[in-house]
This record gives sequence, C-alpha cells and structure tokens, in this order.
Amino acid sequence: MQDGTVNAVSADAKDLSGAPVGRVIVASADELAAVKYNADGLVPAIAQCVETGDILMMAWMNAESLSMTFAEGRMVYYSRSRSELWRKGDTSGDRQFVREAYYDCDGDTLLFKVEQEGKGACHTGERSCFYRAFGEQ
Amino acid sequence: MQDGTVNAVSADAKDLSGAPVGRVIVASADELAAVKYNADGLVPAIAQCVETGDILMMAWMNAESLSMTFAEGRMVYYSRSRSELWRKGDTSGDRQFVREAYYDCDGDTLLFKVEQEGKGACHTGERSCFYRAFGEQ
Repeated sequence: MQDGTVNAVSADAKDLSGAPVGRVIVASADELAAVKYNADGLVPAIAQCVETGDILMMAWMNAESLSMTFAEGRMVYYSRSRSELWRKGDTSGDRQFVREAYYDCDGDTLLFKVEQEGKGACHTGERSCFYRAFGEQ
Repeated sequence: MQDGTVNAVSADAKDLSGAPVGRVIVASADELAAVKYNADGLVPAIAQCVETGDILMMAWMNAESLSMTFAEGRMVYYSRSRSELWRKGDTSGDRQFVREAYYDCDGDTLLFKVEQEGKGACHTGERSCFYRAFGEQ
C-alpha cells in the first residue's frame, strides 16, 4: 500500500497473546463490481482452512458483511435465519481470520482461505460442517 | 454392498483406456432426506479436487441431478441460466468423477471430492473457477 499502513498485517501475524490477527484486504473497485449478489442481495462464501485445505463451511454474505470481512480481516457472514450480520466467532469464540480471498469466473461465489481459531467452524463442535458422508466410505 | 455389484468401483478405478470411472454412491434414505433444497428446488454443490484439495467450482444441483451424480459417479449439475441438467464434461470433455460426497450440518450445502479430467473445471480454461484474488497477493 502506498501509505504503508492499511495492508501492513503479514499473513501469519500474531498479536501479543499469540492469537492470529486478520489480514486486511483492499479490494479494487473492479473486483468489488465483479461480485454478483442474488435477488436477496447475498452471495455464497466458502471458507477453506488455509493449512489443511479442508472445507470448513459455506455461508452467505451481503455487501456490508463482505466489506466488513475485508476491513477487519475476519469472516463476517449474513445470517439468513436471523436476518443479521454474523461476525463469526463473536459468540463461539472460534473466529476465522482471512488469509486469501477469491471470486469465481461468474462472480457469484466467493472463496476465503482462513485460519480457523478454536475447535472449529461448526456449531455442532465438529471442525468442518461437512462431517457427514453420503453412502459407505 | 450386499449384492457386491452396485458399489464395486474402487476409488481409483480406471477403464481399459486408463480414463477414470466414477464411484457410484448409494445414499441412504436418511441421508437423502437431510438435503434441504431452496425455494427453487436447488442446493449448492462444491467440487474439490481430491488430489490437491483445491476448490474447483461451485454450482447447483436439483434432486434429479444429485440422483444422477450418485448413480453415475459423475458430477451432474443443474444449470440455472439454461434451466436444464448439466452433465459436466459432456461438451468440454472435462468430466468430474466422484470420489467422496458430503452434506453439511444444515443439509443445505453439498461437498464433492472429485477427480477432475482434462484441463480443468472452468469454462475460461483455468483449472479452478476461483482464479482471481481480491486485493494484492
């Protein structure tokens, strides 16, 4: 960054307690314009563990939660069931820190590589929400 | 399987030409009942490369395309733009062969680990649809 401050958090930065801190992402106007929201103003966002490659969860963002995610370097979703912003980990303590962010060819799905804090992403206590397989393994 | 035939394809099976063949998945009634379709009868399906862990794409399935995916061991999506079933690779040749299939805690998102054939999943020629990053890398 030109002013040397906005994006100064390194990818593996920790705070004084050793906890991870988020990577602030400064998206360009073109990048933001490429994001296509559905009729409800939402776009699906996949969270992938940056270390293992495991898919942790898929949830939804609106423009405000995407902006907050970039500004804070923490995953902020939009809860369709509660109709409110959902700063992941504010209740559970299991926050997700942004490392990389991508949008797909159609601009209608987002992918975030994150550092998952705590026991995991799922409200059931599982690390990943995709803990159940179809058929015999 | 009790009859020894339906699920007899091993995870890395190849046909006589060396091309991969799909893994047929026999989902239980309970597993199928756990899948929640949206108001349009669709559920998002994430395709992840079973070898690299890379997310290849996210598209949508209806109940029929999910059933075909399990029966053929090949990814079959539902195209929202064309309003028709979309057997991935029928046109491009770049088929996706199912290796593992999961559903999330809410049952409203599916995850497939696949063997990606050919040059990749994206119609642009990229291997993954998520080839564009937000912000400076």
